[in-house]
Amino acid sequence: MSIITLLTDFGLTDYYVAALKGVILSRNPEVRIVDISHEIAPQNILSAAYVLFGAYDNFPDGTIHLVVVDPGVGSSRWPIAVKAGAYFFVGPDNGVFSFALRNVPDYEAFAIKNESLLAPKISSTFHGRDIFAPIAAALSLGVPLGEIGEQLPAAQLLPEPIQVSPYSIKSSIIHIDRFGNCVTGIQRSALPKNGLPETFALEAGNHQVRQLKRYYLEEGGQPNAPFVIWGSIGFLEISLVSSSAAEQLGLRIGDTVRLDLAPKRSRDR
Amino acid sequence: MSIITLLTDFGLTDYYVAALKGVILSRNPEVRIVDISHEIAPQNILSAAYVLFGAYDNFPDGTIHLVVVDPGVGSSRWPIAVKAGAYFFVGPDNGVFSFALRNVPDYEAFAIKNESLLAPKISSTFHGRDIFAPIAAALSLGVPLGEIGEQLPAAQLLPEPIQVSPYSIKSSIIHIDRFGNCVTGIQRSALPKNGLPETFALEAGNHQVRQLKRYYLEEGGQPNAPFVIWGSIGFLEISLVSSSAAEQLGLRIGDTVRLDLAPKRSRDR
Amino acid sequence: MSIITLLTDFGLTDYYVAALKGVILSRNPEVRIVDISHEIAPQNILSAAYVLFGAYDNFPDGTIHLVVVDPGVGSSRWPIAVKAGAYFFVGPDNGVFSFALRNVPDYEAFAIKNESLLAPKISSTFHGRDIFAPIAAALSLGVPLGEIGEQLPAAQLLPEPIQVSPYSIKSSIIHIDRFGNCVTGIQRSALPKNGLPETFALEAGNHQVRQLKRYYLEEGGQPNAPFVIWGSIGFLEISLVSSSAAEQLGLRIGDTVRLDLAPKRSRDR
Repeated sequence: MSIITLLTDFGLTDYYVAALKGVILSRNPEVRIVDISHEIAPQNILSAAYVLFGAYDNFPDGTIHLVVVDPGVGSSRWPIAVKAGAYFFVGPDNGVFSFALRNVPDYEAFAIKNESLLAPKISSTFHGRDIFAPIAAALSLGVPLGEIGEQLPAAQLLPEPIQVSPYSIKSSIIHIDRFGNCVTGIQRSALPKNGLPETFALEAGNHQVRQLKRYYLEEGGQPNAPFVIWGSIGFLEISLVSSSAAEQLGLRIGDTVRLDLAPKRSRDR
Repeated sequence: MSIITLLTDFGLTDYYVAALKGVILSRNPEVRIVDISHEIAPQNILSAAYVLFGAYDNFPDGTIHLVVVDPGVGSSRWPIAVKAGAYFFVGPDNGVFSFALRNVPDYEAFAIKNESLLAPKISSTFHGRDIFAPIAAALSLGVPLGEIGEQLPAAQLLPEPIQVSPYSIKSSIIHIDRFGNCVTGIQRSALPKNGLPETFALEAGNHQVRQLKRYYLEEGGQPNAPFVIWGSIGFLEISLVSSSAAEQLGLRIGDTVRLDLAPKRSRDR
Repeated sequence: MSIITLLTDFGLTDYYVAALKGVILSRNPEVRIVDISHEIAPQNILSAAYVLFGAYDNFPDGTIHLVVVDPGVGSSRWPIAVKAGAYFFVGPDNGVFSFALRNVPDYEAFAIKNESLLAPKISSTFHGRDIFAPIAAALSLGVPLGEIGEQLPAAQLLPEPIQVSPYSIKSSIIHIDRFGNCVTGIQRSALPKNGLPETFALEAGNHQVRQLKRYYLEEGGQPNAPFVIWGSIGFLEISLVSSSAAEQLGLRIGDTVRLDLAPKRSRDR
């Protein structure tokens, strides 16, 4: 039995998600559908790319990940289907698969062009139902990628963190989780082998964060001060013990952060 | 394998939805359960009717749609089960199936009366668990509608948009989606064959909307001005490009709208 | 086909719930996964215990209930697996199974210690994915409880309502549902056989509630005054007819309530 996961910014108050599911089940009644999230901040590609990355490789080989976070619906971006390692991805070519594809340099991306696989009538506002869901269903039924359309040289990828100097990396807040933890785009793999040095500074908004914890309730350090923590999929997060770092520090998705690995001593904070 | 969909205003913070699912799976372990939405605005029959209409016919023939949006629980409205075309509907007889049933004039509606099919003890506050879920499970097991209760002459239907004059239709906001788009009760089928004329005016609150777009990012027109768009299931929506029309225009579910197909020229806006 | 239910405070905006599902399906592709809720107020054990109690025994025998509401992740509380009657429970040993286990005095609880059943690498922040989900999957595959770890004398239970006097019970608000109904910790079984006497007073915040309704729309009584109602799983709730009792009365989870079965007459309200 194959699996299709769904990741959208549709929310759960409308018929949009159910329409996707109905279309998929009408085409493949045996497939199993699993929600990743439908609460991605509207049109936030960065956040969707992060959430997909946290979920996708927990699923069995062959799983098809369908992502519809698509600010450009009706405009010129391509709908694509991608095979990367053991997984398939279906969605708009806008960078939403970035973190998943960076792990798999030899992925294959196809522009969706075979109209016989799509809904008989394509609405201008709901490509999830009319294009993406039918293609995910087709893949789950074993239709080969080559029949879906034309291979592309590459998929769109989001910009990576910038190495400003050997000791300084610039990135941004890419996601804020339910608890207000602010996930930065800085992955463990972007740092030197030893990881974070004992003395470091992460600048975010007007704040400088200088302590690292291994788990949220780890004792020690300045009470009520923000700290960084490596999240469970290897991104550096800014957190507070029992309140929302996003609210307390006034941080939002897209805000610039700068990690300094050899900072001067700060006098204040 | 048959499918039961769920549409409620229970929200997702309580045990209510899971209780429905547990009851259904205890009676039919093989049925597949699919959520449509549990985030219908509390007790909002209009919004539920719209969301059901957007989802129901994407599902395979034979799907059973269970709706529990039931401000009258414990009072005198009947619990009903309906067969309309290829689909079954189970829920309170309060108009929640209106849009789905208008498409199918020869539907059959039955008052649920056969107590042997229900929970052994019926609570006064939770008919979803004690009446509706057991009946949906019974239908999924092949129990014929005639055994469920007594046929009714008709189901309750919500009022339709009013044709005030040949050039003017009165309706209301029936749903607000996650993006703040305000869905009116005006369906394409309520208009003359040519659809919206080039000059029209939709009055909603203190606003007059005079431009039509085909998709949200279509260029042209007055920037930042509200526009109407035909939603993907054929209802006229009031939208703004990148903010919530509901918030910006102060519109709410139930607000009256009036579509004028031959408006005078407006001097302002 | 066995069933695993999920109850967490992860919310639905992140990859956390999907990661649990992916891990489970990777280990047992045949199991059926049903969400109870992921919207438990962050780290609120009381509310999770209540929601679990409302859902768990609607499911078929053998169902495995996986609960991850775990303020102590990374600290010293044990991860446990419990068999109680026909059901299994997996989660942290912090009281979250209290209401379910009180019904079943001869439950068996095991500390999870068998590392060969867990993820190869245990993160410090995400035991749901690395410990609890693998154990739920193992149980669904028939691994006996005895192989999971070491039997404990008992699981942690939350404090029960206190009988202050023969006529007075002290408890607290343990849950607030979507409609703003405030669920107290007072169960029917805590009262004398005749239930609530005609004259009673429930004190909550600055309010005294003195009327009982059988269903929300029952007529009579003081309009717009709060009333109590026995919720569908037998807990006393404080409600208002068409607004949120929590908001109107300023009540929150954890607030003390006191039920007086032989109150003096109140002069006001």
